[in-house]
Amino acid sequence: MNKYYLEKADINTPKLYETEVISDNIVDIVPDETAFFGVRAVPLGKNKEAFVTGEKFILDFGDHCVGTLSFRLRHEARYLDAPVRLKLRFGETAYELSRDFSTYHGGLCPSWLQEDIVTVDFPEIVHLVRRYCFRYLEVTVINTPNAVRLTDFTVTGISSANYANLEPLPHGTDPELVAIDRVAAKTLADCMQTAYEDGPKRDRRLWTGDLRLQALTDYYLFKNDRLARRCLYLFAACEEEGKYLPGCLYQKPSVFFDDGMGICDYAMLFCSALCDYYEHTGDTATASDIYPVAQRQMDLACSCIREDGSLRFLDGWFSFIDWAPDIQRMLPCLGVVLYSMEKMACLARALGDTEHADVWSTKLADTREKVYANFFDKTENCFITDKYEKRQYSVQAQAWLILGGVITGDEAVSVLRGCLSSEESLKPVTPYMHHYVVDAMVKLGLTDEAKDYVKSYWGSMIKNGADTFWEAYDPKNPELSPYSDVIMNSFCHAWSCSPSYFIRRYFVK
Amino acid sequence: MNKYYLEKADINTPKLYETEVISDNIVDIVPDETAFFGVRAVPLGKNKEAFVTGEKFILDFGDHCVGTLSFRLRHEARYLDAPVRLKLRFGETAYELSRDFSTYHGGLCPSWLQEDIVTVDFPEIVHLVRRYCFRYLEVTVINTPNAVRLTDFTVTGISSANYANLEPLPHGTDPELVAIDRVAAKTLADCMQTAYEDGPKRDRRLWTGDLRLQALTDYYLFKNDRLARRCLYLFAACEEEGKYLPGCLYQKPSVFFDDGMGICDYAMLFCSALCDYYEHTGDTATASDIYPVAQRQMDLACSCIREDGSLRFLDGWFSFIDWAPDIQRMLPCLGVVLYSMEKMACLARALGDTEHADVWSTKLADTREKVYANFFDKTENCFITDKYEKRQYSVQAQAWLILGGVITGDEAVSVLRGCLSSEESLKPVTPYMHHYVVDAMVKLGLTDEAKDYVKSYWGSMIKNGADTFWEAYDPKNPELSPYSDVIMNSFCHAWSCSPSYFIRRYFVK
Repeated sequence: MNKYYLEKADINTPKLYETEVISDNIVDIVPDETAFFGVRAVPLGKNKEAFVTGEKFILDFGDHCVGTLSFRLRHEARYLDAPVRLKLRFGETAYELSRDFSTYHGGLCPSWLQEDIVTVDFPEIVHLVRRYCFRYLEVTVINTPNAVRLTDFTVTGISSANYANLEPLPHGTDPELVAIDRVAAKTLADCMQTAYEDGPKRDRRLWTGDLRLQALTDYYLFKNDRLARRCLYLFAACEEEGKYLPGCLYQKPSVFFDDGMGICDYAMLFCSALCDYYEHTGDTATASDIYPVAQRQMDLACSCIREDGSLRFLDGWFSFIDWAPDIQRMLPCLGVVLYSMEKMACLARALGDTEHADVWSTKLADTREKVYANFFDKTENCFITDKYEKRQYSVQAQAWLILGGVITGDEAVSVLRGCLSSEESLKPVTPYMHHYVVDAMVKLGLTDEAKDYVKSYWGSMIKNGADTFWEAYDPKNPELSPYSDVIMNSFCHAWSCSPSYFIRRYFVK
Repeated sequence: MNKYYLEKADINTPKLYETEVISDNIVDIVPDETAFFGVRAVPLGKNKEAFVTGEKFILDFGDHCVGTLSFRLRHEARYLDAPVRLKLRFGETAYELSRDFSTYHGGLCPSWLQEDIVTVDFPEIVHLVRRYCFRYLEVTVINTPNAVRLTDFTVTGISSANYANLEPLPHGTDPELVAIDRVAAKTLADCMQTAYEDGPKRDRRLWTGDLRLQALTDYYLFKNDRLARRCLYLFAACEEEGKYLPGCLYQKPSVFFDDGMGICDYAMLFCSALCDYYEHTGDTATASDIYPVAQRQMDLACSCIREDGSLRFLDGWFSFIDWAPDIQRMLPCLGVVLYSMEKMACLARALGDTEHADVWSTKLADTREKVYANFFDKTENCFITDKYEKRQYSVQAQAWLILGGVITGDEAVSVLRGCLSSEESLKPVTPYMHHYVVDAMVKLGLTDEAKDYVKSYWGSMIKNGADTFWEAYDPKNPELSPYSDVIMNSFCHAWSCSPSYFIRRYFVK
């Protein structure tokens, strides 16, 4: 890995802020057919303090928390003359705690489910070493020799978001937008650690696609440019010749990435993220520092565009786009390339690399023409093809190719509206992809439509109980999970934080 | 609690020595009808390094260990993109690990069984916070996303015993005695922490009865007078007017004792332990400091001796003596009182308290006469009574009343030998009580018999696999447990360390 970039990433490690939340409010989790996940947390008041073997309770910390847990363990009447063994289960949602984690048989490692057994040898204030992500905490007393007092359950919240930098929305702002903005800001804050994590419960990685939306949103919320800078340097350090950047990286025990995780659209969004950074900070030094990596990524993508405007697969090539089942990725990914190419041409010009600026501008105009000529079906009024992939009418392809500038104006509006209202078309399932639909609307000047879309999609998540925005959400399908079981889903997911970007940049002036 | 004594205890907190033991030796635990507990550990050589979900192995650290555990967790080929969850089970003996801990249904809290689940979020050197007590460690990989490398399993042993102070036995010493002395010293060392613990696996308390034997033995082994001093001060701090001292105390979170744990024979052994301390260290300052507490304890016991020489029960009075089932305790406990009274009279005279020295000497002579007259059955040739308790012919009563000086010389020899060889008599089951049988032999000049007894009892424990001496041991009954299940027994128990005392004081010159 590139040591210079790693050092730059290192010196930009952000300060972590700590906040304390104490709770002795308990809830019962009961079935409720009207609730999105079929259960509801019912407040039961204050917790009692003394417990015997076999007892359990569920604490509600009132909001989503990311941090470490401590509590006080003491004897009640008689001294605790043996260790006390507790089982702790943590849930971002009440639904998770309504489930027995051992029933999970999905594809991801069950160790992500937050469950620990703690043995405490002596009465003391117990500080657990792991970082947890939860609103609800279930405590079961597995064994205690005598009644044990369990009190002062405290979360020390950890985040690199500085709430002092967060400006309130103007007085009189639509309360629905205020609520969405609050939840979005909380989502982003809880994902802001020493990097922009994708989800503090699961993965905890820095992904390019998430980074791009997090940093973009953060310029309008906590303004932690240092963190954005660090993350851009981290990815820059991972460049390998002739390959797309890895889609994600780990920070511990030292910066690390898996081979074979090159994701074309994510590599393009790294380029876009660098352009965003320059646009929002004006920090020429950092932009120039990292630009050569982005330039090589863009050149690599350009080299993959065929004569007919389609996108060629590289060995180990992978594209993400969305979690929609069976999605065909070539067309939308092409849109991501064109979208990023336009931004990169702009950055190249600003940094004085007119050669690349010209090359990309020419390539962009040329490719847009070819894509329109070869992959736009005027009869069907959409981008579609069966030449390189299964013929599929998707919102993902239309939105991205609009963002890529292949069509514009009324034609684009008609394509986008048509696809969104069609019963045949494949729809996005991730807030991440929904972001780019909204972005396309904004680009086409459909600000009110965009606002309604945000209120409808993200707003309904709040109505369905979200304290922070979720990784995957289909208002019609509570069982949607990329991992075949909702309890593995991340319920505070970075790529869902972007409503604040739209609200603060476009919807509220 | 008495603050002065607590402060004195505090400033005498001993230094803890650390030693490292690393193991990658694995064993299989297999049934073996010829083994004492029915199982045997079979060496399998070196451990492999990489493991997947569901695999398990048992490490053998080669000897009994007390300390903290660390190990190195790394990825094998692919990065560990999810936490790794391990189950760890610790056994002092192979037998414990041959058992499923959930089958334990005895009286003590199951949380003593050493079993923990550890979730490791990132590849790192993992340091567990608890102190464990074991030779064998079973590791089960509950979940790992990819193959995980588990290496460098290291115990950081903790003890306040300084092995540099341990003098080797003279060249040519009977190898059986050398072996017993080595195991006894290891037993003591592993129980020596910031107090003389009774057992590092279970209880981990300072008990007076154990303290007395530990300190007595330690004067001949590690010579940690500071630790003996601390423990005496700790008990002195717990005195309550008109009550026997608590039988045990806890050090964490601060010095603490349970009400109602006054044990008459143990309170007497506190007095004996103070006398031992003075005898072995000549430290008049400490002895004088603590003497008033011992004096009041002895006066309390004296006040409980009835006109006929029997011992009266105090409210909340409790006597231990031994774990032998259904043991009658009045007569042996009376022996403990007389034994300690003799020592206290001696200490009182040395410290200039001639008044008490005279009172106790007179009381001693008087009581011995009455006990002999009223509770010695010449026909049966033993101490026995049904006046205050169930008529019971026990080694415990004979040994203690001999130590209490009620009979001496040939008569005592005949009583002791008769009771030991009788098929009717109740026999000791704890090494603790066996100590006092040996002590009685030594007192009667039966040194060779005492030596054979030690070789037979403690020696056979080694033949049956003991790395350290056990809490309870009956060579004929592997299922002996005060807690209805052997897996709860402590296999490194302080009160079993005293063979080194006899070996070094009496058997080897």
